[in-house]
Amino acid sequence: MEQLRFDGRVAVVTGAGGGLGKAYALLLASRGAKVVVNDLGSARDGVGKSNFADAVVKEIRDKGGEAVADYNSVVEGEKLIKTALDNYGRVDILINNAGILRDKSFQKLSEQDWDLIQAVHLKGAYKTTQAAWETFKKQNFGRVIMTSSNAGLMGNFGQSNYSAAKMGLVGLASTLAIEGAKYNIKVNTIVPTAASRLTEDILPPDMFQAMKPELIAPVVAYMVHESFEDSGIIIDSTLGFAHKAHIVRAPGVPLRNKPSDPVTIESVKEKWSDVTNMKNAKRIDKIAEVTMDLVQNLQDFEERSKLDSEHPSYWSTFSYNSKDLVCYALGVGSSVVNPSDLRFLYESHEDFSALPTFFILPGMSMESPVVADSMPPGKHADFTNILHGEQYLEIVNEFPGTEGEFKTRTYVVDVLDKASGAIAIVNSEIFQDRQLVLRTQQHIFIVGQGGFNGPRDSKNAVPVQPVPKRAPDAVVEQRTAEDQAALYRLSGDLNPLHIDPNVATASGHPKPILHGLGSLGFAVRHVLAKYAGNEPSNVKAIKARFAKPVLPGQTLVTEIWLEGKRAHFQTKVKESNNVVIAGAYVDLKNVVKEGNATAGQAQTQSSAGALKSDSLFAKIQDGIKANPDKAKSVGAVYLYNITSNGKTVKKWTLDLKSSLSVYEGEPKNGKADTTLTVSDDDMMDIAAGTLGPQVAYLKGKLKISGNIMLAQKLGPLLKSDAKL
Amino acid sequence: MEQLRFDGRVAVVTGAGGGLGKAYALLLASRGAKVVVNDLGSARDGVGKSNFADAVVKEIRDKGGEAVADYNSVVEGEKLIKTALDNYGRVDILINNAGILRDKSFQKLSEQDWDLIQAVHLKGAYKTTQAAWETFKKQNFGRVIMTSSNAGLMGNFGQSNYSAAKMGLVGLASTLAIEGAKYNIKVNTIVPTAASRLTEDILPPDMFQAMKPELIAPVVAYMVHESFEDSGIIIDSTLGFAHKAHIVRAPGVPLRNKPSDPVTIESVKEKWSDVTNMKNAKRIDKIAEVTMDLVQNLQDFEERSKLDSEHPSYWSTFSYNSKDLVCYALGVGSSVVNPSDLRFLYESHEDFSALPTFFILPGMSMESPVVADSMPPGKHADFTNILHGEQYLEIVNEFPGTEGEFKTRTYVVDVLDKASGAIAIVNSEIFQDRQLVLRTQQHIFIVGQGGFNGPRDSKNAVPVQPVPKRAPDAVVEQRTAEDQAALYRLSGDLNPLHIDPNVATASGHPKPILHGLGSLGFAVRHVLAKYAGNEPSNVKAIKARFAKPVLPGQTLVTEIWLEGKRAHFQTKVKESNNVVIAGAYVDLKNVVKEGNATAGQAQTQSSAGALKSDSLFAKIQDGIKANPDKAKSVGAVYLYNITSNGKTVKKWTLDLKSSLSVYEGEPKNGKADTTLTVSDDDMMDIAAGTLGPQVAYLKGKLKISGNIMLAQKLGPLLKSDAKL
Repeated sequence: MEQLRFDGRVAVVTGAGGGLGKAYALLLASRGAKVVVNDLGSARDGVGKSNFADAVVKEIRDKGGEAVADYNSVVEGEKLIKTALDNYGRVDILINNAGILRDKSFQKLSEQDWDLIQAVHLKGAYKTTQAAWETFKKQNFGRVIMTSSNAGLMGNFGQSNYSAAKMGLVGLASTLAIEGAKYNIKVNTIVPTAASRLTEDILPPDMFQAMKPELIAPVVAYMVHESFEDSGIIIDSTLGFAHKAHIVRAPGVPLRNKPSDPVTIESVKEKWSDVTNMKNAKRIDKIAEVTMDLVQNLQDFEERSKLDSEHPSYWSTFSYNSKDLVCYALGVGSSVVNPSDLRFLYESHEDFSALPTFFILPGMSMESPVVADSMPPGKHADFTNILHGEQYLEIVNEFPGTEGEFKTRTYVVDVLDKASGAIAIVNSEIFQDRQLVLRTQQHIFIVGQGGFNGPRDSKNAVPVQPVPKRAPDAVVEQRTAEDQAALYRLSGDLNPLHIDPNVATASGHPKPILHGLGSLGFAVRHVLAKYAGNEPSNVKAIKARFAKPVLPGQTLVTEIWLEGKRAHFQTKVKESNNVVIAGAYVDLKNVVKEGNATAGQAQTQSSAGALKSDSLFAKIQDGIKANPDKAKSVGAVYLYNITSNGKTVKKWTLDLKSSLSVYEGEPKNGKADTTLTVSDDDMMDIAAGTLGPQVAYLKGKLKISGNIMLAQKLGPLLKSDAKL
Repeated sequence: MEQLRFDGRVAVVTGAGGGLGKAYALLLASRGAKVVVNDLGSARDGVGKSNFADAVVKEIRDKGGEAVADYNSVVEGEKLIKTALDNYGRVDILINNAGILRDKSFQKLSEQDWDLIQAVHLKGAYKTTQAAWETFKKQNFGRVIMTSSNAGLMGNFGQSNYSAAKMGLVGLASTLAIEGAKYNIKVNTIVPTAASRLTEDILPPDMFQAMKPELIAPVVAYMVHESFEDSGIIIDSTLGFAHKAHIVRAPGVPLRNKPSDPVTIESVKEKWSDVTNMKNAKRIDKIAEVTMDLVQNLQDFEERSKLDSEHPSYWSTFSYNSKDLVCYALGVGSSVVNPSDLRFLYESHEDFSALPTFFILPGMSMESPVVADSMPPGKHADFTNILHGEQYLEIVNEFPGTEGEFKTRTYVVDVLDKASGAIAIVNSEIFQDRQLVLRTQQHIFIVGQGGFNGPRDSKNAVPVQPVPKRAPDAVVEQRTAEDQAALYRLSGDLNPLHIDPNVATASGHPKPILHGLGSLGFAVRHVLAKYAGNEPSNVKAIKARFAKPVLPGQTLVTEIWLEGKRAHFQTKVKESNNVVIAGAYVDLKNVVKEGNATAGQAQTQSSAGALKSDSLFAKIQDGIKANPDKAKSVGAVYLYNITSNGKTVKKWTLDLKSSLSVYEGEPKNGKADTTLTVSDDDMMDIAAGTLGPQVAYLKGKLKISGNIMLAQKLGPLLKSDAKL
């Protein structure tokens, strides 16, 4: 790397007679800066006199550098800045480093101890910085360092005065970073730990010796260089290490159950573990973000409260990625033996997709207490007395992508009295980016909990439909594997009934049984292949009743009747001829009969606004213009599919063969030699060098089809020309 | 919940003439506190006079409460505290709330604007708190609130004076929390946003109207209640929401490559993206933790640099849990068809364990650049020209548990020249909690990159061993599934060669091939069953050479020869009679021939020091003593296996049948009715109510064997008596 220089820059370093300040002054001077070496000339406690600054100036000059001594107090900061202006005509860099200690336990701390520390650390930095501010603004350049301390960031016994001043500097830096932004004034905070009384007793002697100011000075020097772009950040550094620090905030919770409730001391206490739960804490950079966050929280709270007033709801989240989809697909009998299944098993397949029944899972929150809570007095439901009776799924609009996160609202819409038991009708509404994308409904049968004079039926229940009374239009037979349930369990339902022979026997089964949803996954795959061209996005809704259990290894026979756009089906076990899935149907958007050519209906391409990677392709374009020969030597056409939530939202063509150009959309001439599919975020990480392309590929984050070898040629081009 | 009262408590609230302060005073008085209503009686900018405090006192008295007005400035805090002592003889609570604003852009800010803000906010809080401190210490009780602002936490345009003061209060509170800890003095910070000029322009009018002080007052009241235990924390609250905030710190990085290098401005710049990467940032609560962290970082850096100077090393981490183990076991052919395999497929099985070959995976870092970097000049290695030639695994001491995290060092120990290609000998050393637990060695064959006059052999290479020239002692045959590779890919190796027919064809295979490590997993399972009693912890080391590829669906035939404690083996494909795994062996700690009874050798129980859950069992013991009838009604004996890193480290018996007692170890009389296995951390979460026992069970975090129903009886007992 070229040396980072400070030629022509004028730096003021306060407290530069020794220690850290001296190290800063020497380093900046050695790199061409003219340095004002400020030192009050007193000892650590602010008392006494000395001429340390002269010695530092001499050392700088002896090495051929430029420097001048300044003996003013930082509380009269304007005098320090005047020294810079008088001697060098400008000031570019200010390192507020001067400081003293007056450690006392809080009770013994005198008002003078308090005032002196505030004056030197906080007011001194304020005064000196303010004195330089107009110059910084006029010249559209300024670099300011505030010096804080871990005693400020975390508190330290006997340093109440010092912690207050040191944390005050962090607050001052934050506001000055904001005010300086449009004038290229960067204000940052260093938290240095050099050998000092503070650390002498705590550290091993070797380490204490090793805490040299020279190990911190390059960090501060980089932070005041003209190439430094961060502002308002905190950097903790010592011993040749550095760490950024910042404040994060918990997501926060409403302190009451609904907006019409009062907030009371008791309701606060009740919610306290949520208030202080830092698990999903995040950085909030600007005060405006706090406000936006607040508006969003409040809207969510009001909306959810309104929903809750209709039916007590439970909210949960569900995340999935391509690995989850492949695992699920294997769990419901997709196999590489059928080439048409490969799109469900291979994350880099050009038509890689979820199976539609996968989207039943985000509605299956295990934590939800809604069924137990909805039981009539004297009746109870827990996982030992419930059975999954029926299942409904509706794809509300577009078919979801191959990765994403959902928020699910689950609630009981009715509890039916079926004498022998109760049935809870459990609805889930599943949102992505605040849009309703899926609905599910489960009928949960609660054994032995009927007879409470409840309703027998519900208009809210989506009913099963009897299959037509004629021979089926299609029949699909598939044997389940002996390990089918063991494999399906990896998709999240760990009920031991499906793996533990003892539990299975206790429940009256000869061996662990398949998951009902596992069998349903098989059956819907059969319908998909026969009447939907194996294209999941053709599915609109699914309904089924679980009539009897299936044992792993048994053969499923799915009988299908097509009536308009509805494919009725039922599934039997071949060995027993029992109907195991009854009254079921799939509603289709398009009927595509097996063998008809246009099976792979392209998924709707969502329209996308500006993406982060747009700038990257602009840079690649620049790179090609700057170096057309290098670009031409690649000799291939690349198509990038940029995805968001697992869906392609923008396409870019890199034509490095004929037209040497980069443009949005598919190749205008001919076909791409290599197609790369990658999310907007991952694309940025690859360009920034934080995600290696090879790693991205091997982890399935970068999908490559067509000529894989040609992708290798792209690497160097991307790396050297497009690094952000 | 019972009402949280303040009877007998004396509270001083500064700036209580209106707004938030008034709301605090009214609420505390309504709950029994005697309140000193302090107000300087000036307007927002500190100018003018009024008698707001009198009006608040009147309102409190009219409602039957006790209060007295105080018109002193907080800068003379001792006078406020004197008002409390003179009128009520004590002071218990201090809410530092008084404040004014003097907003100006930094350049226009006058020294008076600065000084006044510092005085009222920061010095006022210091003075008032210090005046009460001695009383707090003497009575061993004190509750202090500092009032900060998001303008302090994040900065805000035009508020440099205010942000500095408001952040200074956070620093002051941190140190006072530490100094007050042993006197039951809790010092915390509130960040309130009430309707104010600050928010008037930003927020929707409805929301602005809704920002009532009454929504924040209960939060502050709870934070000064005697039941409140947090200290030194920051709580942001408004509109009936509350969020905790705190500072987190990035893990940090060395600013140079080895300790003998200098830290330069350039080396800092080079590492900057790591310095500022907040991905694994964590909370550090105490300054002593910073030091410990530092000592650890430094030791690691020195150790790693020393290792690096021998061989350039790459460090990576590898985490796994029970789901990964089950997924892997299915991937290498474990099946529920063999009852003896269930221990690898069912996370709640009492002998649940990893397969030994699983521990090859943490040595397989995909990100590692060491092979590419070790190539001689003119030669290159990337994932298109490398083949996995041989594999070695050594279990250094104990067999690892069923979940955990490893840190892996990977390096190339030698590069051999085999004319047709090069072979990189890649060692991995795998650590858990800083202990070396595993070693692996891969021989990576790099096609076409030989001929560089390099060595042909290496003394560092672990060699394969020829199988004995006699008929094998045992032969195991197992067919692989058609989807075996698709399934094995879920364990992390996503190379398309194992799933993409086009890639397979391009590489000269009739279809996608099995992973070499997948076949090895089968073969070692065969050896394990024949000669290790199916007990993974009997395995010491494994070595194998991958001779030829296997196609999914082919049948593997493993031939085994036992010689002492070494089981030599080779594996053939039945269909072709090709040897696919050659010269292989498993070194055993114990030889257990198939059919011999004592197969399931119990894993060594690690000795554990104090665990977090110890206190919980002590509380359960107390609960039983307090309520023996309730305990006896359970009528069962429970055994808890408390785990750490997936291994049982302590056992506790809850005898609620005969002796009504809780003690460490297995039941003294008879057998447990129900055995519960849970990690120390999860046990605490369950007791704290943050993890529901049912959810824990369904997620496999709480494993229950024996009588599952009896575990249900335990729930209420644990919940009511042992909640922490």
